Amino acid sequence: MADWQAIEGGVTAPQGFQAAGIAAGFKASGQPDLALILSETEAIAAGVLTASQVRAACVDDCHQRLQDRGLARAILCNAGQANAATGEGGRQDARESVRLAAEALGISPEAVLPASTGLIGERIPMAPMRRGMPQLVAAISPQGSEAAARAIATTDLATKSVALETEMDGRPVRIGGIAKGSGMIAPNMATMLAFISCDAAVSRSLWQQMVARAAERSFNQVSIDGDTSTNDALLALANGQSRTGAIVEPGPKAERLEAMLVAACQTLARAIARDGEGATCLIEVRVSGAPNDRAARQIAKTVVSSPLVKAATFGRDPNWGRIAAAAGRAGVPFDASALQIALGDRLLLDGGQPVPFDRQAASAYLQQAAAAPYLDGDTVTITLSLDEGSGQGVAWGCDLSYDYVRINAEYTT
Amino acid sequence: MADWQAIEGGVTAPQGFQAAGIAAGFKASGQPDLALILSETEAIAAGVLTASQVRAACVDDCHQRLQDRGLARAILCNAGQANAATGEGGRQDARESVRLAAEALGISPEAVLPASTGLIGERIPMAPMRRGMPQLVAAISPQGSEAAARAIATTDLATKSVALETEMDGRPVRIGGIAKGSGMIAPNMATMLAFISCDAAVSRSLWQQMVARAAERSFNQVSIDGDTSTNDALLALANGQSRTGAIVEPGPKAERLEAMLVAACQTLARAIARDGEGATCLIEVRVSGAPNDRAARQIAKTVVSSPLVKAATFGRDPNWGRIAAAAGRAGVPFDASALQIALGDRLLLDGGQPVPFDRQAASAYLQQAAAAPYLDGDTVTITLSLDEGSGQGVAWGCDLSYDYVRINAEYTT
Repeated sequence: MADWQAIEGGVTAPQGFQAAGIAAGFKASGQPDLALILSETEAIAAGVLTASQVRAACVDDCHQRLQDRGLARAILCNAGQANAATGEGGRQDARESVRLAAEALGISPEAVLPASTGLIGERIPMAPMRRGMPQLVAAISPQGSEAAARAIATTDLATKSVALETEMDGRPVRIGGIAKGSGMIAPNMATMLAFISCDAAVSRSLWQQMVARAAERSFNQVSIDGDTSTNDALLALANGQSRTGAIVEPGPKAERLEAMLVAACQTLARAIARDGEGATCLIEVRVSGAPNDRAARQIAKTVVSSPLVKAATFGRDPNWGRIAAAAGRAGVPFDASALQIALGDRLLLDGGQPVPFDRQAASAYLQQAAAAPYLDGDTVTITLSLDEGSGQGVAWGCDLSYDYVRINAEYTT
Repeated sequence: MADWQAIEGGVTAPQGFQAAGIAAGFKASGQPDLALILSETEAIAAGVLTASQVRAACVDDCHQRLQDRGLARAILCNAGQANAATGEGGRQDARESVRLAAEALGISPEAVLPASTGLIGERIPMAPMRRGMPQLVAAISPQGSEAAARAIATTDLATKSVALETEMDGRPVRIGGIAKGSGMIAPNMATMLAFISCDAAVSRSLWQQMVARAAERSFNQVSIDGDTSTNDALLALANGQSRTGAIVEPGPKAERLEAMLVAACQTLARAIARDGEGATCLIEVRVSGAPNDRAARQIAKTVVSSPLVKAATFGRDPNWGRIAAAAGRAGVPFDASALQIALGDRLLLDGGQPVPFDRQAASAYLQQAAAAPYLDGDTVTITLSLDEGSGQGVAWGCDLSYDYVRINAEYTT
């Protein structure tokens, strides 16, 4: 059993964090588009950034800051323009944005981590950035998480946030977070961003390792083709304001903190998958019996990324053949004659061969998930069991609908 | 310049090949569904089979035969049931089908290569196989290529065939072929099958190497997610009936034969991509300046497989940002500030930054491709230039339309 509980407050739930989100004028729609997260004290900063060869200026800046100092006070994020493929001018804009935020906050520019999301090839308009900054800083508050979550969204239909609490040394320790996603996670204007806050006292190297491992088991297991945008970023601050004992080496306390971090990241990852462009349901693929955890995750991700599995789910079609075919091409050797596949709790394939099943009931199971949008019931669970070892893994995605095509066919023109 | 020419005749164009296709009753629609290709004399046989862990019985049989003997007289293919994930019963059906064909042809069962395409998990109904075999063998003729091409099709909208001729030692040497594809190449009933015939006299080991390399540069560069079905197979017979000198070692003649083989395979690969489920146009992605050819092919395939690039193409949206993002995540390191992207002959990105271009004209270029279905003009060409070396590569795919979702959402139910 998890020894933490969900609480309110999102990214500002942990001690010593504040946030704000305003409409600065980057989005033509007039929606909120500039967000700030602030730690009252200097925080250990870790991150996982896009592996793409085509990176936005902000990603390069974050990489530099995380390497050089590994400390930060604030995260600044604009939505509307990705500021990727914008050359030297784009790099200057990113630097100027950071400078403006630092000045308004009275902190060092080195303590600000920048993030951008929006159209590739478009620079950040600097006039709204200059005009908006005082208003953004004035709006910052311990209740600002939802406003920040709204301001980092692009085509997202729902805001995504999480807050979890556990107890250490008799005191509460919290992890919070907000995220944005949408699209198939690599779209133009559907960068995956996740900002995590934590008030535990943890060493820089441990925190970096925890964040990297948590990303492997959450955001990296979301949907679609191994896609990565030019701007993807997970940034995680730990400021020690819980005033609990410092966690400086591996052990039970570090494990508990990491487990809670993984849970927080998985909550956001699931929310991103659920809110995929055009999605009518969340697909969760669970794999067990793989040679190892990495192999299990690889199979799970291949299945959940398969356009055929996704389209069949949208069609409420319990098409186990596509699930088996996707698993078979995941690059993991396994004995196909021992493969088991279940949809919900209904076995469809056993010992590598189809099991007679009630097709209508299986289809109804898929139907029901789509009928409960954004509620707990909106999840289609696909379970694969192999006979190769004890490796386990999970991946999340969504179905492929007409709306996905519509949204992505009619995007810039 | 290529020193071969396109001719009529498909898979039966080379000397000594015959083919047939009949409606045996495997498809509920009553369409042709059983095909046979026969070489009048024993032929060198090479093949490339699905790398999936979940393989149909026929794939295992072909693997065995190609390894054991590397010789064959016939290829037998049924359409309607994939006979994958069908266990021991399925394996017996595959063996029995081969035995029936061999008996009717008066040849050894070891000389028959089996292939199946259709629904995964469904066994081949043996009654139609028994009933149909005499009719199939009676129908075999040197003009049977188109009938065979029709009988291996499933959701394909067009048959796919090729025949090329060159001259060696003053005599014609020919390569022919038929193929089926559709879907995104991994669908349930959209296995990629390609059967190649050749009348050159070539050694077994050379032919196997040529076929493997040709597959790398053609079928393996078609579309979508690295998808592989349970039944994918390229089978290639070379029977020496051109009565030209034997090609037994690398050299100019071997290179010419291989170049013609690559051209034949690429023609079929393009036809498969063009006929992808719901496609309105063919997308050809050409990459140059990569560190090596393999890296170039990898980038080309990643771009052509991107659901976002595909959906944008369907939307006639010259969205270079998605092309750049897909290239960036292909796993090949490159200097993004030297990246060039062109759509047709229109430059969209240069030196890693957007070039002002006439968006309407670019959209019209995309529109025009869709207006010329299955004609030469129906190709959208995307060209990427890097500054990393001299590696070149091409990949083919198609756009992502509402119809793709419809076809795949409403497939089995």
